Amino acid sequence: MIVIPLGVSSATPTAVRHLPSVALWREGSVFLFDCGENAQMRLLQAGIKRSKVDTIFISHLDGDHIFGLFGLLSTLQLQRRDKTLHIVGPQGLKKMVDTVFKTTEVELEFDIKYKELKDGFEHEVVLEDEEYYVEARPLKHTKLCIGYRFQEKDKPGKVDAEKAETAGISEDAQFKALKNGEDVTLEDGTVVHSADIVGDPRPGQSFVYVTDTEFCENAIRLAENATILYHEATFGEPLKEKAEDTGHSSAQDAAIVAKTAKVERLVIGHFSARYSNQFLLLKEARGVFEKTWLAYELRPIFTNPAQEKDIISPRVEIIDLKDKRAQKSRKTFKPEAKRKGSFKKRRFKRKPANARYYKSDSDQSRRGRYKKPYKQRPEEDQSKSSPHRPGKPLPITPRTPFDDFDRF
Amino acid sequence: MIVIPLGVSSATPTAVRHLPSVALWREGSVFLFDCGENAQMRLLQAGIKRSKVDTIFISHLDGDHIFGLFGLLSTLQLQRRDKTLHIVGPQGLKKMVDTVFKTTEVELEFDIKYKELKDGFEHEVVLEDEEYYVEARPLKHTKLCIGYRFQEKDKPGKVDAEKAETAGISEDAQFKALKNGEDVTLEDGTVVHSADIVGDPRPGQSFVYVTDTEFCENAIRLAENATILYHEATFGEPLKEKAEDTGHSSAQDAAIVAKTAKVERLVIGHFSARYSNQFLLLKEARGVFEKTWLAYELRPIFTNPAQEKDIISPRVEIIDLKDKRAQKSRKTFKPEAKRKGSFKKRRFKRKPANARYYKSDSDQSRRGRYKKPYKQRPEEDQSKSSPHRPGKPLPITPRTPFDDFDRF
Repeated sequence: MIVIPLGVSSATPTAVRHLPSVALWREGSVFLFDCGENAQMRLLQAGIKRSKVDTIFISHLDGDHIFGLFGLLSTLQLQRRDKTLHIVGPQGLKKMVDTVFKTTEVELEFDIKYKELKDGFEHEVVLEDEEYYVEARPLKHTKLCIGYRFQEKDKPGKVDAEKAETAGISEDAQFKALKNGEDVTLEDGTVVHSADIVGDPRPGQSFVYVTDTEFCENAIRLAENATILYHEATFGEPLKEKAEDTGHSSAQDAAIVAKTAKVERLVIGHFSARYSNQFLLLKEARGVFEKTWLAYELRPIFTNPAQEKDIISPRVEIIDLKDKRAQKSRKTFKPEAKRKGSFKKRRFKRKPANARYYKSDSDQSRRGRYKKPYKQRPEEDQSKSSPHRPGKPLPITPRTPFDDFDRF
Repeated sequence: MIVIPLGVSSATPTAVRHLPSVALWREGSVFLFDCGENAQMRLLQAGIKRSKVDTIFISHLDGDHIFGLFGLLSTLQLQRRDKTLHIVGPQGLKKMVDTVFKTTEVELEFDIKYKELKDGFEHEVVLEDEEYYVEARPLKHTKLCIGYRFQEKDKPGKVDAEKAETAGISEDAQFKALKNGEDVTLEDGTVVHSADIVGDPRPGQSFVYVTDTEFCENAIRLAENATILYHEATFGEPLKEKAEDTGHSSAQDAAIVAKTAKVERLVIGHFSARYSNQFLLLKEARGVFEKTWLAYELRPIFTNPAQEKDIISPRVEIIDLKDKRAQKSRKTFKPEAKRKGSFKKRRFKRKPANARYYKSDSDQSRRGRYKKPYKQRPEEDQSKSSPHRPGKPLPITPRTPFDDFDRF
């Protein structure tokens, strides 16, 4: 499975973070968790065909999580989709979609099957297939909000061909029966036990999507032993009170859920627009649960990198022209004028790193010339730095500079 | 006035072109023409404060032109807007917006004043202010579609201070009266005529927004002598039939409207997703009307560059990672590995351009070495090329490669 965050912002987008949506790729099918504004374009930009979307899971009916639905459905219509689309979410979804398309005088020509969950439900399997199922549980938000767990079913163990042959198994049907856990009786009456020939079942992988919730029991229940838990981390611990007021989690809350549920990997997303530096949230979460990653838009997360690499790769990159830090750390993005300089500095680098004075072999006049101290070459310095450099905390802007209001 | 195209795609977005929306900045106020999906983020990315949006003009109720409305209104709500917002558009808009916000349980706390136009209207002034007015006329599409003209009123001419003094004008009130076109009677009974002292009125500028229409009379009426006409050019002339079937214009149609209406500048936008090379459309339009520009997303168009430069500048840049052509022509974006090469080639360039064989001064062994013919150095070649290089038409892909359907 491949998890691709399409939008990692919370209620309002920033210049580079989109509204919430996460795509899950599995064996060619795509499942969408929430459908924030512009999700259709983000799918395209992520390198995912929109026609491959089979099911859309909506967590709750807040605009930031659903306003991309209308556009996506319109595009599927223009693509002349004929496959059924499944939409799972809280009650009221169908009526809203129908009204919007009635106003725009569009009659969708493909089937949409809605599965609407009512306030008060406790646990439900909302989708079941031969190879996987999806279960839902209510979370703790200002309105009905649903958490989802996408669970692959365990695959049967591998048949040990050598052992099987020794035991006298020869026909395909017999192999199949053994693989399905059935014992096989041979013509001479010998019983070959499945357990002797077939290895342990291989556990299925799982993806859990928990967003817009305070810390809650159901999040832990959903996430138990999950392969990947995608959990909201709207705020940092210093804004804990605001988080509780608005029904959200802090990064630490997310980490506690992950730790308690013993997940393999926690991915945090749904960041408040105030955090231009989301590493602050990562640091907070890692303090509790080391195996935490930040969700990056369009950057795929593989559950099995060996098999899944290069299946999905982003088509675009959005560059924040005002974020000098991001631009400097981006090696492939440097203005022409600076390139010459960096070429020269690369030549300097070939000298021993501790040589502050050096003698030129070829030119007497340069003998003994003082080489500028290391710190005066910020560009070279930058290329070695990472956002995580210890001892150098990056600044956090309490508000984003481009809008004058107290957002969350 | 500054015109900022926010989205220049038609029905479906491409990886780098957003759904239709154009912002008009005038003296600190922002007017939005159509509100395609993600318009709120595009405003932010263009460097425009969303709180400055005063009026939204909707051309018609097709999803691609309105699905950004819900998100934008939600964000204005979160920004705690208290100013009234005006929305002008076809009948049905208010009902749709109300239903959506009822579903998401949001009660908008700022006033929205709707001005809904009914099918069958002929001409209407939909907004009037001291300094400008906006008129609307129906266009020719598959459903009611409205074209808008934003017209600054003529400013009074400048008072010739010297002439006024000679005539005996001394008080502020007298100056004001003259400026307003009134004659002033002095104490000694002399009448000073306004026309003698005040220059000709300075004509106001205008912006005309015409999208989703076949070639039609009303477009010409709206555009008469306009400063900037933003006109759709969904197709090229070879797809004229498709354009007529779907109620759209070709680039040539747009140019004919501009030429007939004698506009100062035509800007074409609303390109079908099939055109990865929109210069084809530009070429077609320029064949009829030379003063045509392509709409580029987030690139501002100034009616008065001397005064308006640097007021609006984009915050982000979207790079299409699969468009090698675009990346090569973009000097600031080259992978590290290629930079060394381009440095070397720059050194070669210092030789006379017509020197195909050259003698090295310093090294006998290199004497007479054959320098590779020019055409084998594609990178250097690229840097000199422009999308408009005559004799080298760029390819047009009849379909975009990422989706398998016949879109428009």
